[in-house]
Amino acid sequence: MGPIITSFWPINATLSIDMKVAIQGQVDSFHHLAAERWFGDEQLELICCDSFSEVFASLSQGKADYAVCAIENSLHGSINEVYDYNLLLRHQVTIVGEIPERIHQQLIGFAGTDLSSIERLYSHPVALSQCAESIGQHLPQVERIEQPDTAGSLELVRQNGRSAAAIAGKRAAKNYGLSVLQSSIEDEQSNFTRFLVLAKSGTKAPAKANKASLVLQTAHRPGALYHALGVFADKGVNLTKLQSRPIRGQVWRYQFFIDAELEPEQLSEVVDKLQAQDCSVIVLGNYQKAAHTTDES
Amino acid sequence: MGPIITSFWPINATLSIDMKVAIQGQVDSFHHLAAERWFGDEQLELICCDSFSEVFASLSQGKADYAVCAIENSLHGSINEVYDYNLLLRHQVTIVGEIPERIHQQLIGFAGTDLSSIERLYSHPVALSQCAESIGQHLPQVERIEQPDTAGSLELVRQNGRSAAAIAGKRAAKNYGLSVLQSSIEDEQSNFTRFLVLAKSGTKAPAKANKASLVLQTAHRPGALYHALGVFADKGVNLTKLQSRPIRGQVWRYQFFIDAELEPEQLSEVVDKLQAQDCSVIVLGNYQKAAHTTDES
Repeated sequence: MGPIITSFWPINATLSIDMKVAIQGQVDSFHHLAAERWFGDEQLELICCDSFSEVFASLSQGKADYAVCAIENSLHGSINEVYDYNLLLRHQVTIVGEIPERIHQQLIGFAGTDLSSIERLYSHPVALSQCAESIGQHLPQVERIEQPDTAGSLELVRQNGRSAAAIAGKRAAKNYGLSVLQSSIEDEQSNFTRFLVLAKSGTKAPAKANKASLVLQTAHRPGALYHALGVFADKGVNLTKLQSRPIRGQVWRYQFFIDAELEPEQLSEVVDKLQAQDCSVIVLGNYQKAAHTTDES
Repeated sequence: MGPIITSFWPINATLSIDMKVAIQGQVDSFHHLAAERWFGDEQLELICCDSFSEVFASLSQGKADYAVCAIENSLHGSINEVYDYNLLLRHQVTIVGEIPERIHQQLIGFAGTDLSSIERLYSHPVALSQCAESIGQHLPQVERIEQPDTAGSLELVRQNGRSAAAIAGKRAAKNYGLSVLQSSIEDEQSNFTRFLVLAKSGTKAPAKANKASLVLQTAHRPGALYHALGVFADKGVNLTKLQSRPIRGQVWRYQFFIDAELEPEQLSEVVDKLQAQDCSVIVLGNYQKAAHTTDES
């Protein structure tokens, strides 16, 4: 992907740029919209990265002050890339907030393009996944080509003409001078992505922190996970997510990514009790739970 | 994808064809190899399908006697497509066995192709995911193009010439007259896929069944999952997998796919106790646990 194209910037952003935020994707990607919702557009200087790995490196190397990173989509599920390559573990970062965003995916191309003439469809694999059934129904003939970014895929449509289309957000279409050929093509209308706001580790947990994300590896014996979850249940703590992911290099063994409603004091008690059960625990962050906008759906 | 090409069939298969097995993919795909390991090649009549959905339909409509379906890869994680579209729930099928297969992915193209001249890389998205880091390192320039099948991707290499390559298994390369350009390009050498053997529901659980797969939806209250897992822990039952997946249409709510070491009698006790806790439970099958070949890695 090329550098940021200056003319895409909101004009007022030039007045008081002071917050460098790394995102995966380009200007007008869903990551950009989420960053804008959190930081506001006036203070936002985007550092656009092609990969999640680059996003994490930008932050841990101090090129960025913050990062915004998708972690989960309500149709696709977890963004495995972020969990799998231990991006959250390998880099010195901490979660300081979360941003749930309603996602509408648009089929975008040159105005007037006949759907049956589209041969190549570009988008981020997670966006392709959110629209898998729609694509099968409406565009059975297309090649689905993975791109690092939804918005960046539009550049390829511009290069390829009417034989190509992309899946991206509405604002991106406008800025590339392309049209929405079919709107809201996600397979379910209740389509949300949850983004994390990350800072360098050592950053103090925000005031009113009431949610924590942690990674748990239990001892390898029957009932180990049950007993670990008992630590949360004994305190009446709600788990909002429990995601198992394979441990690399250990076939059919898993680690668990847990989100739980925990304030800082409870969190340290929970960690102590888990460790007393021979669990390995890493706290990824303690932050304020977002008001989820599920009632919009 | 085209029909099965007759010359690809093992010659002795024509002598006693009597077992119709639906697979996702083409001849010489990893699904084919797994089916061959389970059924032997002499009695195997493949029904090659482009999608998992077609595989399940073939079985439930009686076109196939059995189906073989990948459910999990040790690098990629669960095959979400099989869980998400409720393929295991929607169709009248039951799990009667499991097949763990060591997977070596090969970069395949015309002999002598220079890696830097490859522009397009075809494969199944799960194979692309198993090799994501390798591709980034050795083929940073390629477009990654999703295909329904690894072996079928080789046909596209044949059509596109030296500007294309595919990721597939070694046997497929041979049958398409192509060469392995780089061998074992999976990101970790301990790369296994677990396949399920499916039959129409109503099929009796195999003798020596000692493992069950079930889907659980807990009541929506703190500690619900903990109490559900207690039913297993109280009996000293080992869970081999716990996979949460989003429930479609219910944002940020999950159902749990559980594999547990359970014999038929224990299974029905467990189901009764879970239901007594207001859990919704569906048993996907009770079958014999495979000897996992993790020591090969």
